[in-house]
Amino acid sequence: MTTLKPVYLQKVKQHNMADILQKIWEHESISRVELVELTGLTSGTITNLTQELLQTGLIRESETSSGSVGRKRVMLKLRTDRYMIIGLDIGRTSFEVVLADLAGRMIKSVEGNTVGIRNPEQVLDLVAPHLESLKTDATDKKSPVIGLGVSIPGPMDKKTGKLLSPPNFPGWEGYPIQSALERRFGLNVFIEDDARTSALAERWYGLGRKAQDLLFVTMGMGIGGGVVAKGELVVGSNGLYGQVGHITLLPGGEICACGNEGCWETVGSIPGILRRWSGGNTIDGFFQAVREGDPAAVQCMQETLYYLECALTTLFNTYDPDVIVLGGKLYPYLTMHLSEIRSRVKARMYAFVRDRLHIESATFGASQNAVGAVALVFGALLNEPLQTLAGTKT
Amino acid sequence: MTTLKPVYLQKVKQHNMADILQKIWEHESISRVELVELTGLTSGTITNLTQELLQTGLIRESETSSGSVGRKRVMLKLRTDRYMIIGLDIGRTSFEVVLADLAGRMIKSVEGNTVGIRNPEQVLDLVAPHLESLKTDATDKKSPVIGLGVSIPGPMDKKTGKLLSPPNFPGWEGYPIQSALERRFGLNVFIEDDARTSALAERWYGLGRKAQDLLFVTMGMGIGGGVVAKGELVVGSNGLYGQVGHITLLPGGEICACGNEGCWETVGSIPGILRRWSGGNTIDGFFQAVREGDPAAVQCMQETLYYLECALTTLFNTYDPDVIVLGGKLYPYLTMHLSEIRSRVKARMYAFVRDRLHIESATFGASQNAVGAVALVFGALLNEPLQTLAGTKT
Repeated sequence: MTTLKPVYLQKVKQHNMADILQKIWEHESISRVELVELTGLTSGTITNLTQELLQTGLIRESETSSGSVGRKRVMLKLRTDRYMIIGLDIGRTSFEVVLADLAGRMIKSVEGNTVGIRNPEQVLDLVAPHLESLKTDATDKKSPVIGLGVSIPGPMDKKTGKLLSPPNFPGWEGYPIQSALERRFGLNVFIEDDARTSALAERWYGLGRKAQDLLFVTMGMGIGGGVVAKGELVVGSNGLYGQVGHITLLPGGEICACGNEGCWETVGSIPGILRRWSGGNTIDGFFQAVREGDPAAVQCMQETLYYLECALTTLFNTYDPDVIVLGGKLYPYLTMHLSEIRSRVKARMYAFVRDRLHIESATFGASQNAVGAVALVFGALLNEPLQTLAGTKT
Repeated sequence: MTTLKPVYLQKVKQHNMADILQKIWEHESISRVELVELTGLTSGTITNLTQELLQTGLIRESETSSGSVGRKRVMLKLRTDRYMIIGLDIGRTSFEVVLADLAGRMIKSVEGNTVGIRNPEQVLDLVAPHLESLKTDATDKKSPVIGLGVSIPGPMDKKTGKLLSPPNFPGWEGYPIQSALERRFGLNVFIEDDARTSALAERWYGLGRKAQDLLFVTMGMGIGGGVVAKGELVVGSNGLYGQVGHITLLPGGEICACGNEGCWETVGSIPGILRRWSGGNTIDGFFQAVREGDPAAVQCMQETLYYLECALTTLFNTYDPDVIVLGGKLYPYLTMHLSEIRSRVKARMYAFVRDRLHIESATFGASQNAVGAVALVFGALLNEPLQTLAGTKT
């Protein structure tokens, strides 16, 4: 009764294929019969679409004997090594470029230093030989690269596609990063800021298997947030959704680079802590002083934890996530305080949800951004498999 | 090629019908040919589904002559008077119950006082005769009521369906309001807190025609928020998404009923202002003193505006909406400051978005909650027309 036009049919096909792929990802191993149950599609459609997915190499079959009679069942699994993804983390003073399979497992990773380089083209010159070499590795393995995911240290204006100027990242403001990368490397390019790629690392490869609503808070030179709601990254009307470093924590406080005053970032980021401490200019030095019991450093540390407690309570009350994940360059220094942070935040929440919220450490440590850049491409593949593969040279 | 099971077909049908209805709502008047263009459905499907929609009475045809040759075109419009919606606003000290058509136009409205009544059943006893009378009015017009939308003054735990205890609303904690109303009035019941219903009033009947991402902030006895993102109400993992009154604005400040300290609500709500002023115990008295230039009152007013400025900047940076809409019982006293608030908040935003954000007054004044309760049902109808109508006695 409901008939559809070809363009729409193609959309429906991609939608159904995405549905199947996501179910296979969720269940890790699933039979066609179970797919019929879970998707509502007919067994004919499931047969056709899984056949196509087998041909693309995105899934594979696996036989298991089940039950006492030893009957064989054919299960479907994601095939994680047929295609590769390259992830690029552009940091303020370093970069990391990784080749990973579809499960986010790193095949190879290269890090480099960019201290003092303010010209984006020069940074890309440094990255290029490593990236090309990873592409060659993928070709040698006969596993084409489906896309390049990129993590950048601050927000991008989604309406113009231009990079904004995050603190301590001079030279990049207004740089048309997407087109520059596409031209240079001939790959599908996907870009988000580091807080969002970090959130996606959790969504696809980390804690997100159990949590559909999560907030990632990254603390380092700046403080950023990435929000996944119902499994989808939220970006807002101007790409500024989740600028959690820029909540007003201290009315009347210091003016922030963003234009606001008293932002959490002005007191809670690495530069913010060092300004409040004024006992030195490295974060290692600060934590050394805290360990040695220096009174000014200890006082500053207590304030830092207090601001974190206030900020996380605010963020729980604004986003109501299942889990808040903490990461970034500052976080390794705070790990030992995690259970204290948990109990202090919970004490300030609505009583009925205290047992529901989880506050956890980021899963991938120093490589969170790079794994997230990979996850960004993986998410695109699972949402639009045909379109994402169409740009891949096989 | 893609074949579907009956249950799934029904889902697809409802999805397509919803798509058509929403396009008709968006465009106000649209031809079948335009619907084919906009939905991607075939003209056959559009013919069938619009025929069904005509039969339900949700849409109507309208002939227009277009162009110089005076050719007749048949346009489709939403039929707003074939069905009615009842909206109920349960406030802390009053209620309003309205009968409205599908366009949110009030046919009849009754307000009542509930001062001193702490028993929910007694409040419903007061509401019942008015609500029954509105149902009779609808029956007399041969316009069946498709649902009862309800606005309540504080959040509900979405996982248990129980009302939480908002400030100054004793006796309602844990009251199973949904089942009580369904049993009592025999209607489909839809419930959200007043900030969310207010946001929905804007989404469907107010500013939302132009803005798909909006934040409604309601200031009164408490401070609440309702967030619409990509046209959809966001509720969060526990129903606590958008508790904007409970952002930490003053670290070390007063303990709030929610468990947090220094919440915006503790200083920015009506009770919060009166506690800071300590020159009287009514908000009318406070604003009278401000107008008379009483120094303590003027000082307290300046602080109130400053807290509002800080809070709205935080909320822009967390939600990145197209528009922030201000309303609630306190807002009429603040209206004269709207342009000042606008420029103060914009001065604190990222420079590139200053011209994009809009801060506006609520559209429906004192009836915002009741109109929002109607809009809550209307939104359900547009998202799931078949399911919503299924429960309606025609």
